Amino acid sequence: MRLLVLNANTSDFVTQRVADAVRRIATPGTEIVPVTGRFGARVIGSYTEMAIGEHSAIELMARHARGCDAVLIAVSWDSGLRAGRELLSIPVVGMTEAALLTARQLGARVGFVTFDQRSLTLYRAMIESYGFGPAVAGWRVVESKAVYTPSGATEVDRQICAAIDDLAERDGAEVAIVNGAVMAGAAARLAPNCIIPVLDGVTAGVLQAQALVRLGAAKPRRGGFARPTGREAIDVAPELIAALRGDDGRST
Amino acid sequence: MRLLVLNANTSDFVTQRVADAVRRIATPGTEIVPVTGRFGARVIGSYTEMAIGEHSAIELMARHARGCDAVLIAVSWDSGLRAGRELLSIPVVGMTEAALLTARQLGARVGFVTFDQRSLTLYRAMIESYGFGPAVAGWRVVESKAVYTPSGATEVDRQICAAIDDLAERDGAEVAIVNGAVMAGAAARLAPNCIIPVLDGVTAGVLQAQALVRLGAAKPRRGGFARPTGREAIDVAPELIAALRGDDGRST
Amino acid sequence: MRLLVLNANTSDFVTQRVADAVRRIATPGTEIVPVTGRFGARVIGSYTEMAIGEHSAIELMARHARGCDAVLIAVSWDSGLRAGRELLSIPVVGMTEAALLTARQLGARVGFVTFDQRSLTLYRAMIESYGFGPAVAGWRVVESKAVYTPSGATEVDRQICAAIDDLAERDGAEVAIVNGAVMAGAAARLAPNCIIPVLDGVTAGVLQAQALVRLGAAKPRRGGFARPTGREAIDVAPELIAALRGDDGRST
Amino acid sequence: MRLLVLNANTSDFVTQRVADAVRRIATPGTEIVPVTGRFGARVIGSYTEMAIGEHSAIELMARHARGCDAVLIAVSWDSGLRAGRELLSIPVVGMTEAALLTARQLGARVGFVTFDQRSLTLYRAMIESYGFGPAVAGWRVVESKAVYTPSGATEVDRQICAAIDDLAERDGAEVAIVNGAVMAGAAARLAPNCIIPVLDGVTAGVLQAQALVRLGAAKPRRGGFARPTGREAIDVAPELIAALRGDDGRST
Amino acid sequence: MRLLVLNANTSDFVTQRVADAVRRIATPGTEIVPVTGRFGARVIGSYTEMAIGEHSAIELMARHARGCDAVLIAVSWDSGLRAGRELLSIPVVGMTEAALLTARQLGARVGFVTFDQRSLTLYRAMIESYGFGPAVAGWRVVESKAVYTPSGATEVDRQICAAIDDLAERDGAEVAIVNGAVMAGAAARLAPNCIIPVLDGVTAGVLQAQALVRLGAAKPRRGGFARPTGREAIDVAPELIAALRGDDGRST
Amino acid sequence: MRLLVLNANTSDFVTQRVADAVRRIATPGTEIVPVTGRFGARVIGSYTEMAIGEHSAIELMARHARGCDAVLIAVSWDSGLRAGRELLSIPVVGMTEAALLTARQLGARVGFVTFDQRSLTLYRAMIESYGFGPAVAGWRVVESKAVYTPSGATEVDRQICAAIDDLAERDGAEVAIVNGAVMAGAAARLAPNCIIPVLDGVTAGVLQAQALVRLGAAKPRRGGFARPTGREAIDVAPELIAALRGDDGRST
Repeated sequence: MRLLVLNANTSDFVTQRVADAVRRIATPGTEIVPVTGRFGARVIGSYTEMAIGEHSAIELMARHARGCDAVLIAVSWDSGLRAGRELLSIPVVGMTEAALLTARQLGARVGFVTFDQRSLTLYRAMIESYGFGPAVAGWRVVESKAVYTPSGATEVDRQICAAIDDLAERDGAEVAIVNGAVMAGAAARLAPNCIIPVLDGVTAGVLQAQALVRLGAAKPRRGGFARPTGREAIDVAPELIAALRGDDGRST
Repeated sequence: MRLLVLNANTSDFVTQRVADAVRRIATPGTEIVPVTGRFGARVIGSYTEMAIGEHSAIELMARHARGCDAVLIAVSWDSGLRAGRELLSIPVVGMTEAALLTARQLGARVGFVTFDQRSLTLYRAMIESYGFGPAVAGWRVVESKAVYTPSGATEVDRQICAAIDDLAERDGAEVAIVNGAVMAGAAARLAPNCIIPVLDGVTAGVLQAQALVRLGAAKPRRGGFARPTGREAIDVAPELIAALRGDDGRST
Repeated sequence: MRLLVLNANTSDFVTQRVADAVRRIATPGTEIVPVTGRFGARVIGSYTEMAIGEHSAIELMARHARGCDAVLIAVSWDSGLRAGRELLSIPVVGMTEAALLTARQLGARVGFVTFDQRSLTLYRAMIESYGFGPAVAGWRVVESKAVYTPSGATEVDRQICAAIDDLAERDGAEVAIVNGAVMAGAAARLAPNCIIPVLDGVTAGVLQAQALVRLGAAKPRRGGFARPTGREAIDVAPELIAALRGDDGRST
Repeated sequence: MRLLVLNANTSDFVTQRVADAVRRIATPGTEIVPVTGRFGARVIGSYTEMAIGEHSAIELMARHARGCDAVLIAVSWDSGLRAGRELLSIPVVGMTEAALLTARQLGARVGFVTFDQRSLTLYRAMIESYGFGPAVAGWRVVESKAVYTPSGATEVDRQICAAIDDLAERDGAEVAIVNGAVMAGAAARLAPNCIIPVLDGVTAGVLQAQALVRLGAAKPRRGGFARPTGREAIDVAPELIAALRGDDGRST
Repeated sequence: MRLLVLNANTSDFVTQRVADAVRRIATPGTEIVPVTGRFGARVIGSYTEMAIGEHSAIELMARHARGCDAVLIAVSWDSGLRAGRELLSIPVVGMTEAALLTARQLGARVGFVTFDQRSLTLYRAMIESYGFGPAVAGWRVVESKAVYTPSGATEVDRQICAAIDDLAERDGAEVAIVNGAVMAGAAARLAPNCIIPVLDGVTAGVLQAQALVRLGAAKPRRGGFARPTGREAIDVAPELIAALRGDDGRST
Repeated sequence: MRLLVLNANTSDFVTQRVADAVRRIATPGTEIVPVTGRFGARVIGSYTEMAIGEHSAIELMARHARGCDAVLIAVSWDSGLRAGRELLSIPVVGMTEAALLTARQLGARVGFVTFDQRSLTLYRAMIESYGFGPAVAGWRVVESKAVYTPSGATEVDRQICAAIDDLAERDGAEVAIVNGAVMAGAAARLAPNCIIPVLDGVTAGVLQAQALVRLGAAKPRRGGFARPTGREAIDVAPELIAALRGDDGRST
């Protein structure tokens, strides 16, 4: 299996961290194709950066999905998720959607830990658009830059676990999701120290991508995820133009 | 008042039609600044095209909003709506959101007429993300290309009114919204022949933009619509890069 | 434009304060017709008083709407809103509904400030019946009678802004609504001192009324807001009896 | 037990029909106090008439509840329900709310039969404000005036049962509610001929009123249903003025 | 009237306490048939125990309902509620559902008091499956074993009332439900000392059972509560096997 | 990996069909432990049978989970799902929940095909309790007994595909779920002939079980899925009694 791991941020550092985590999580023999956004924000953390990221993500898919078996969108905002499901014939997985779907099988009420006060309202809007609003038990913000540095991990991990335990005790959370691509693979490290199960989006995303590849569902021929054809676009990546026109040999 | 009328499609034809309608609807003395997307789909009608359109819309705002008093996003999908509210200090209005908010003051249950079967699921997702799902009485698709030609209008209008009356009689719609930028200003033409009130998004959008300009609300300093600063981005329009960095002299 | 400003309370003091505010907010040339309830509570603040106020409000509309272009219901409870939309052919705007609809264009989550603990449950019921329950971030009660006295305004304003900032910081409110007809026009005064945008219902109501007058939507001929005819009623205002019977020359 | 049976319509005919039905349904020894609205619509069937009916209903309660053990609001629109629960210390039951609550114990999804197309949107708004929207399986309108004449009953009953069976077969209704005060007691007559259980509001209301009287719950001292005191009102029934002021010897 | 009072727990102590309470609450002449589960948990308080309790409850109904007029499920979890409504032709009442339905007629927002932290998530799931999630104002846990001992009642009652008043003051609860079969009849004792009305499930259940018996609704012949016939089952109580097969002479 | 495939029905025929399908779907090296209910319905299709099935399912888990890595509940009703997640330390997957979660990654709106009119209301209740009600586009019932016979498959498959295509065309379904354990593995056979992707619960369940085993989430120590201890139960399987008591050596 060949997995396109897509980072719509323009920071190779996060792409590398995600790719390393995916390698540890995926079944042996999985080939990983990590790609980084060509344009847009270093780290997407605002609506404006999300708007650019949508374009960046679908461009990456149009350019790199050919020959892959699935796409993992390794951005907290699941940038380009619906677009990718429409454009491609292979499974497209969003890390936050995957975490939510997986979490539902571990607990009824989900607690979230994130690293930036501002992102709360962005997450909330996304989760509600998925219809998972009622499943949210609560939120905690761990304000820390150390999350981006290797040396800071131990101290931050302690804060994260304290936040998760507090979500369980006071808000009734039964499972926790740690947001952010930078937390790729952290679940394995955090889980032993928390009183409820912990998920990170990249871990959940790899597992859901594998499941969907094995499922091998057919491309829809009706509805919002059927492939568009005969569409005309200008001044975007030639692969996008070709894909929308439909003369790309049904590339995936 | 100076109103930026933003068409994230790359077709000047629709921009012109919208601009003409805005001129008829806006109060005298309103100056209209119509802009057309520089890249992306001729007519946005798929998730992929919406993804590109998000970027296109916020780029247009970063480049052209300076000196304007409000932005009207004249795209059915309200492309860039949240991003614009975050980036700019002036009111940003989405034509479909404006139609929904205005419609609520005319009837409890809203019927929609659109011109393309595929768009139904895209509209539904957007309307539900606004929290207006429960207000929708029903949908009708008038499959017609004539909507884009001047000569075909009369016949299409008849079909639209028949669809609206049917929404009222069978689905209990109390007010109708005719979707699509190409229907800019159509409400005035259609309303006399329908048994329930009719709105189009551009008409509603102009009126809401005027209301918000008069309101003169302050820019939020907290939450998801506070302005981002100190953000780093690459390879997008210089105006976007400057606005995200925050050294653009607080451009609007 | 001639605007009927309807206060279903029986206190001229509030009517005057509202009328003054409307004059400052409305576009020049707007003629204001302020009317006060003939019977019922001095200040509506309970379900019983709301029940009486519904009758009072629709009576005022039946008696005074003729010759007007729109109605602004300047009561927090939007008394008579649905009835007015049914009975009249001109736009009828409720101050709290208008504030909610306008607020949605400024922030995703709305915080409310009110001045009386008891009113919380009444507001909640109303807002949920509008379908806006999920948009509410939180509530704050500023217990103060000074709100009704000119001299107390400064101190109360400080408390209100503190409450609003707290709604933003702790509950994630992105826009605030200050409830109560007595706060007519207060948004302009409060906004500069708060970290999120502030709305009052009368300000929002005037702006929405102007928008709807310009829209000029047709009277519905089907559904719950079509005009009733041939209805028989006794011992209420003759204008109401005539309007329900339908022999009032289609008065508005 | 003494039961105030309140008809906010101004038509004695319906009051009598309801009173007869209540006599058949209530436990022996129940004393019935039927009262008819003093002002307002003959038959409430529009928002305007509902607005007047709210006032009429609470006036009837203020005037006649003293010495009674419970109130049954025998109007489809549950006119004055919240106001009565606030003003009085005895249980106040709304016939449609009672039917909905009782129906939930007989089937998961409720079908409604009503007699007037227009009333659909009014019922829907009320049922949604009770939070029972998701429980509604479907609606049928039996357009018939015969429902108001004794001789027409047999033919109308046949139509109603056909409508109910259709709700069960096609919409998955598991229990049916026949709306309207004029259908008081009809459930007993209809039930044997329908494939799912049938309820009418007056039957359900009598049973719920009896249950609440036996329960003997205390008057709330907090929240929206605590009794208002020290309130000032003018030009309404003296009993209402006294009750709002609180110097009526805590009349019930 | 003959009322089957069903305790799916295997502890006679609770059955007796419930039966005593039912005797005080029910109208004179009510014959009470108390039955205790033959297998399963002493006190159901986990999902596993609830799973067993579902079977236990429907077995008790199949074995003991014949000759009874109604069933009261005196288990907080309403064990076997849907199954009983399907299998039997007499009314089946769940104590928690009954409490919720009754509470809605006393206040808009319901506060819950329970005696075990763990049970919170179980209650929440049940209440949401009934569609009553939005009506919940808040929860309080009174951790006390004394609730099971006669001597401890006074002190626990004080704690419960304090919890209820706190629910009213801080969470806006307008009516309270005290959970647990062991609290059967406690409402009468607690109510005078609380600032909002208080309900216990057994009290509410007896009253709703009486109401449904008087209603005498017909057994549904369609939908999920129609009686199953011709079903084959093995190795369960012979009465269950016969009832599913349908050759039990339509036992109730 | 060792997978307990649990059929709470008492019909070996279905267990075998499911086990065959699981063998085809699971990754090589998966060991399958198929078990059939010891008591209860041949085929669970009513609330009564579901109540018994809850007990049967959790008994099977207590008796057979030791030494397994995951449980797949191969019953449409996900019998014992919550109980199993509480009692065991290994992942427990419900086939219908798994189908719903997987479907969300393939399309926004889900259509259901089932084989028995009666089951509709049971499915609806279950799906709503999972919070997936709003994602349902529509239902189709293919009334056919041939689904249980090998020879009938071709004709039934044609009917199923026609139903699925109709769900897509008329109800806007974007992905379909074919209900029933008897349809285990049918997705692979049906998908090529349908215009939207098709899932069956057993296929989805196997894939989700594999994902959760790889995830290796820790057993929750708080909330509704923490393991109960010190609980007392009588007259059920000794393994259940031991597990509830907690002296089973933490069996899984």
